[in-house]
Amino acid sequence: MPRHKMIVLASRPEGAPSVDNFAMVERDLPELKDGELLVRHLFLSLDPYMRGRMNEGKSYAAPQALGEAMIGGTVGEVEASRNPRFAVGDKVLGMGGWRTHAICDGRDLRKVDPAVAPLSAWLGPVGMPGVTAWYGINHIIAPKPGETVLVSAATGAVGTVAGQLTKLMGAKAVGIAGGPDKCAFAVETLGYDACVDHRAPDFADRLRRALPAGVDGLFENVGGEPLNLAMRRLNPFARIALCGLVASRYDGSRSPVRDISPILTMRATMRGFIVSEHMELWPQAMAELAGHVAAGRIKYRETIAQGLESAPAAFLGMLRGENFGKQLVRLD
Amino acid sequence: MPRHKMIVLASRPEGAPSVDNFAMVERDLPELKDGELLVRHLFLSLDPYMRGRMNEGKSYAAPQALGEAMIGGTVGEVEASRNPRFAVGDKVLGMGGWRTHAICDGRDLRKVDPAVAPLSAWLGPVGMPGVTAWYGINHIIAPKPGETVLVSAATGAVGTVAGQLTKLMGAKAVGIAGGPDKCAFAVETLGYDACVDHRAPDFADRLRRALPAGVDGLFENVGGEPLNLAMRRLNPFARIALCGLVASRYDGSRSPVRDISPILTMRATMRGFIVSEHMELWPQAMAELAGHVAAGRIKYRETIAQGLESAPAAFLGMLRGENFGKQLVRLD
Repeated sequence: MPRHKMIVLASRPEGAPSVDNFAMVERDLPELKDGELLVRHLFLSLDPYMRGRMNEGKSYAAPQALGEAMIGGTVGEVEASRNPRFAVGDKVLGMGGWRTHAICDGRDLRKVDPAVAPLSAWLGPVGMPGVTAWYGINHIIAPKPGETVLVSAATGAVGTVAGQLTKLMGAKAVGIAGGPDKCAFAVETLGYDACVDHRAPDFADRLRRALPAGVDGLFENVGGEPLNLAMRRLNPFARIALCGLVASRYDGSRSPVRDISPILTMRATMRGFIVSEHMELWPQAMAELAGHVAAGRIKYRETIAQGLESAPAAFLGMLRGENFGKQLVRLD
Repeated sequence: MPRHKMIVLASRPEGAPSVDNFAMVERDLPELKDGELLVRHLFLSLDPYMRGRMNEGKSYAAPQALGEAMIGGTVGEVEASRNPRFAVGDKVLGMGGWRTHAICDGRDLRKVDPAVAPLSAWLGPVGMPGVTAWYGINHIIAPKPGETVLVSAATGAVGTVAGQLTKLMGAKAVGIAGGPDKCAFAVETLGYDACVDHRAPDFADRLRRALPAGVDGLFENVGGEPLNLAMRRLNPFARIALCGLVASRYDGSRSPVRDISPILTMRATMRGFIVSEHMELWPQAMAELAGHVAAGRIKYRETIAQGLESAPAAFLGMLRGENFGKQLVRLD
């Protein structure tokens, strides 16, 4: 009987997670039943939301079960099929998890066309991160031409798309990223009007200078000090799309806001969202994003780790901002 | 030439305001020009937003000018008129400010009918505080039957109406108020399902027990510890109408939120609003509220100070929660 490898959650982190919270295990691959198919994974997506799943407790999703393969988006190739909708060789996008193979009934799989966008892009700008940016920009911030949208984690998988969609809508995009290389990439390749390095000792001053007209929209992926500073620059009727709080959720601590009163005085709106709750919009979003990627209107960058065993360290590095662009694991 | 009295802002508070920030002055009443009318004020409204106007700095409104009569809603009687739209004896609602008389061109005045609701009610449940509650409940929280809405300052001018509108919409209303008398009034007279005394030493426990099904809507007038505790009880897709932060704005300090992450994990929305920016809705809101008051579906309570000179102390007392229901000053 063939075997496959997976990485399971071995223990829940107390404070900051470590590679010891994960374990590689090998399991038998059962025979395919009628209606099932076997997918060999080519790319595994690593995303900040997985950090939240490692905890127990009240969140928007059930916690990741201990001893089970970590949840995660995957692009793979159908290797065997007893499902008439899928043929051997089909490329499919799904939530296969951190493992080399997955057997499923195909209901939650989506066929993807490598001629439209490279396979890995279906986990990045054309996939969940891209749709996340698309939802927050289109359905929460809705920037008007001339407005200013501030994007934290500006060169991350989501921020990359949020900034470029902002520019495509005729608004100004200002990014926050870690280090001069990411900031240069944000401006020179992604087209941000400015990008501020949150590691700079004079970050607060730089951010203020980069926002001469204040903040009409805030696409917040991080939380922490940048969020606190951005709150002080809100314009009337500002919209905050609260997409992530990776800064504080990394080690499980709270995400304090020093002063919530700008929401009141600026009549602002802050809205948290989870893109998987808006599945009805995914086909439209993915079609638009694929068009932008194919036409070169949306550019992106990837950091690719090699081999399933590299996933835990690559995941933790991403939470610390060590990736540059979309963090993937290549499994082939 | 006749004279009239007014209370002006004499100095800006540093930290907590005091009566020394105000001064009573007397001024001549000029002759009426064509199109003008003279209003003798009967009631002056004291509202938390006035505290914000005492500060300089970025807010939704220009600061109150030093040496000028404090801003404020008024109900009065037309005493002389050179404006064909108004006759002597008409009762009018306006923003006459903290003074015994006002001369104006009538553009911002609204005639009120004492047969529909008592004169003072046009400054309370049928006026700005009522419309504020109406807007937050109808346009931000929009409670569905069976949902739970938490209202801070539950027996204040705004909270009184917010709680009763919640009940009229078939949802549960839970209040927070200061002291057992206010809590009893909230439940027995206003119809709240429960009301929790924020001065009780075991306030956090009581609040948790009063919210067995969590919080679907939060009508926030106060901020501070109650807001922090409520954030931990949010249900998925909770709506927070951020109407005031009187707790922290009283002494000009910040309004910290210990942990903003429930907005993300619960996909909640927090929206600040200023009811004067939705004037197009006031006629509908006031008509509905007047109907509720006339039919006894909305009850209310007033604390009435006597004489213009009592306004500063009554205002400061209201900021400290010493009023019980709508705080007014009677000027006749």
